[in-house]
Amino acid sequence: MGVEEHKKEAPKTFKFGVITVSDKGAKGEREDKSGPLIIEELSKLGEHVYYKIVPDDKIEVLIALFEAIKSGADVVVTTGGTGITRRDITIESIKPLFDKELSFGEVFRAKSYEEVGYATVLTRATAGIIRGQERIVVVFSLPGSVNAVKTGLEIIKSEVFHILKHARE
Amino acid sequence: MGVEEHKKEAPKTFKFGVITVSDKGAKGEREDKSGPLIIEELSKLGEHVYYKIVPDDKIEVLIALFEAIKSGADVVVTTGGTGITRRDITIESIKPLFDKELSFGEVFRAKSYEEVGYATVLTRATAGIIRGQERIVVVFSLPGSVNAVKTGLEIIKSEVFHILKHARE
Amino acid sequence: MGVEEHKKEAPKTFKFGVITVSDKGAKGEREDKSGPLIIEELSKLGEHVYYKIVPDDKIEVLIALFEAIKSGADVVVTTGGTGITRRDITIESIKPLFDKELSFGEVFRAKSYEEVGYATVLTRATAGIIRGQERIVVVFSLPGSVNAVKTGLEIIKSEVFHILKHARE
Amino acid sequence: MGVEEHKKEAPKTFKFGVITVSDKGAKGEREDKSGPLIIEELSKLGEHVYYKIVPDDKIEVLIALFEAIKSGADVVVTTGGTGITRRDITIESIKPLFDKELSFGEVFRAKSYEEVGYATVLTRATAGIIRGQERIVVVFSLPGSVNAVKTGLEIIKSEVFHILKHARE
Amino acid sequence: MGVEEHKKEAPKTFKFGVITVSDKGAKGEREDKSGPLIIEELSKLGEHVYYKIVPDDKIEVLIALFEAIKSGADVVVTTGGTGITRRDITIESIKPLFDKELSFGEVFRAKSYEEVGYATVLTRATAGIIRGQERIVVVFSLPGSVNAVKTGLEIIKSEVFHILKHARE
Amino acid sequence: MGVEEHKKEAPKTFKFGVITVSDKGAKGEREDKSGPLIIEELSKLGEHVYYKIVPDDKIEVLIALFEAIKSGADVVVTTGGTGITRRDITIESIKPLFDKELSFGEVFRAKSYEEVGYATVLTRATAGIIRGQERIVVVFSLPGSVNAVKTGLEIIKSEVFHILKHARE
Repeated sequence: MGVEEHKKEAPKTFKFGVITVSDKGAKGEREDKSGPLIIEELSKLGEHVYYKIVPDDKIEVLIALFEAIKSGADVVVTTGGTGITRRDITIESIKPLFDKELSFGEVFRAKSYEEVGYATVLTRATAGIIRGQERIVVVFSLPGSVNAVKTGLEIIKSEVFHILKHARE
Repeated sequence: MGVEEHKKEAPKTFKFGVITVSDKGAKGEREDKSGPLIIEELSKLGEHVYYKIVPDDKIEVLIALFEAIKSGADVVVTTGGTGITRRDITIESIKPLFDKELSFGEVFRAKSYEEVGYATVLTRATAGIIRGQERIVVVFSLPGSVNAVKTGLEIIKSEVFHILKHARE
Repeated sequence: MGVEEHKKEAPKTFKFGVITVSDKGAKGEREDKSGPLIIEELSKLGEHVYYKIVPDDKIEVLIALFEAIKSGADVVVTTGGTGITRRDITIESIKPLFDKELSFGEVFRAKSYEEVGYATVLTRATAGIIRGQERIVVVFSLPGSVNAVKTGLEIIKSEVFHILKHARE
Repeated sequence: MGVEEHKKEAPKTFKFGVITVSDKGAKGEREDKSGPLIIEELSKLGEHVYYKIVPDDKIEVLIALFEAIKSGADVVVTTGGTGITRRDITIESIKPLFDKELSFGEVFRAKSYEEVGYATVLTRATAGIIRGQERIVVVFSLPGSVNAVKTGLEIIKSEVFHILKHARE
Repeated sequence: MGVEEHKKEAPKTFKFGVITVSDKGAKGEREDKSGPLIIEELSKLGEHVYYKIVPDDKIEVLIALFEAIKSGADVVVTTGGTGITRRDITIESIKPLFDKELSFGEVFRAKSYEEVGYATVLTRATAGIIRGQERIVVVFSLPGSVNAVKTGLEIIKSEVFHILKHARE
Repeated sequence: MGVEEHKKEAPKTFKFGVITVSDKGAKGEREDKSGPLIIEELSKLGEHVYYKIVPDDKIEVLIALFEAIKSGADVVVTTGGTGITRRDITIESIKPLFDKELSFGEVFRAKSYEEVGYATVLTRATAGIIRGQERIVVVFSLPGSVNAVKTGLEIIKSEVFHILKHARE
């Protein structure tokens, strides 16, 4: 079955949550442009059920993640904290929960390589599936910058239904 | 500094949550004796802030864990789902979140070995620390049986202040 | 030494096994086009010693893998079960056995990105080396679709001798 | 339910395979006393379906393991190669396949500590469960010495039915 | 903040060490062209403080790595031992020390794919950050060939300041 | 071959290094009693070649470890930093380097359990082998307290020759 036929059988909608991970954002010292951008773009495909700004704090990130999941989110997108500073803990917090990691990171970096070249070495964006007995949740962890979020959204919007279809099988 | 002096400097109280992991318990098909036992015993030392019965479901276990943490719990005790059946997922769900694993499991099994001998091979109880920027949470995952909970509580009640003191340093 | 000189010193032939991983294929409910395609193409370079269709079952996949290795296979190619559904277990079954993982997955996805774009996020193809005291076996795990198999075969046929040469050193 | 009631509901028999891992044994330079001892003892509880002596070679160990499993073994006991020499590869070969590791190693060493004291630091015996869609296989990896095998058999004979019962649930 | 603004705020210089990993090189049986090339190129950006040729030996590689770090190196570049032969141990020796792995390997292979096509599957180059309380060290592990070193240097020279800036935050 | 016969064939001497890991010790704010105790006791069996006090800093701990190894140490004993505070990083720094982990931690805690009971849950002492092409180094990581060091030394003095014999095979 080719990729296009696959997509025809995919679900028609989904619920999503958005978590912006930023110390400054959580203190109100920086306006969050990335979170609202994600909400705006994904609302064209699905239903927005959760949004929160949290500091670069593993416990706060995970409280928000499971609040979003409790709100019914099938998809959660985080933005921020995927870099290499000492405070960047989003990947360390979320990746251990994946039952299956998607190749999203490689595709994201292949695209970034086209846009920002070697600077791509600094981003550790990734995505994966968390599985319950019946339910599944797909989590995408994107960098914080608006440009990087745009790159990530392009891939997510293209494949989110395809991913949900297969992850639920 | 000997063990006793250590304990003198330890905090005097703590908040705790209790999560019973049981498909039958969550459907109301089995009375939960282990959860209330933990609440009763730990209430002699700390303040009880959260209690929930969830099925053997990774997403439900983690929703409850982070609800307990959001309620202010410094300590969370789970009971159930540490065995070797296909549905036993408590350890797989929680252990990847530990920043540091305690040697609680070995001590628990040394004590169990005294009580139930070779049957100890079937229990995978463990405990560990989840760290935020400032906050820490200590999670103990005990088996579901009342006897095993009694064994676990004996160790927890002896060492919980000692553990909280060091984990917060 | 440039890549081309390397390849001149590589072995001239090899034995290979093919394992198709498909619940439907194993029940005879779907014709296996991918397995025979791999046999046909690799027979131009090496000697085919093993072929089996197994369900998406870790124990069955590993029984077949070590039957192929017992039959003398230096190279084993699996097709199927590298996706993200609950039943996709090929990668989980085989990857823990690798002594060294090759960068095959990244190159496979770089090529797939050229062909199917963002849908590449869904494939987790990989390859690696399993080492005995003297012997080595190279295992390639490809997706199930014929198109993906063609992409994978192109890389395998180009590099298999080069890989065998170095892996045996 | 106490431990004894558990055991009453356990299966009444099982099929088992035995693999002796020893370079000298495989070359016929040393008589295998441990393998036959395991066969003799476990035949009092279950049906012996496989026995092989293999060298300390990851590929040979895994070929034998999956031959035993193909022969219908529910339980496989290996003896040898759990020490700390460069050639001791049994644990490295088998442990990555476990879906769940049992606390068998800790109980085995607690017992060894009673018998050989601090020398227990040198043994890395362990056990775990490999899961297919329906089937499960329990693998025990014991040291090579007859004394250590006796210690291990005592625990296995006490708990094997109990383990099989829960692992199949 | 775009990539270029980021780079303006980056440090202006750094200290670096170079380790060539080669059995033949360490015995004086092969002239080291890769090490001196790295020194020459990185000396245009930073201060060279350490250079050593060591065999493909985990203990020797790590002795040299921590000598370089003791000499004040903020950046250490190794060349050699990133392939798939039995003696290639550089990645196995260094990668477990990383507190954060950079996406350097993917970018390196994306570039190699442009230059040597499918042969890229054989290289496992990578890079990462080792963190002390205050200090950080960035380690790049490149293949041994001069061509591969040139590819790696191009990325390193482009991003080293950018990486140091963020890794120190 | 029983444990005693094994020990007769073991080497007769060894070189050892001692590293005390303590922020206060490194600043001269606390006298180091544990390091000298280890040197005194192990000098009865082997040759002392290295001693250093370092802060709880991963880079400093590893610089000292590989200085000790460069000085010819076959055995390195660290004391301190095996607890559960945020600054305890000895285990996180050293354990990833082990090619084989010994069951030393379990035996150490079995003994501690006899001495300090449930407080044993707080110690994560361990030991393992780092392998070069020919050389091997055995590293024991003990807690910082003098009592714990005494417990650890008892096990080390009993088994160090036995361990060196097998690890070198």
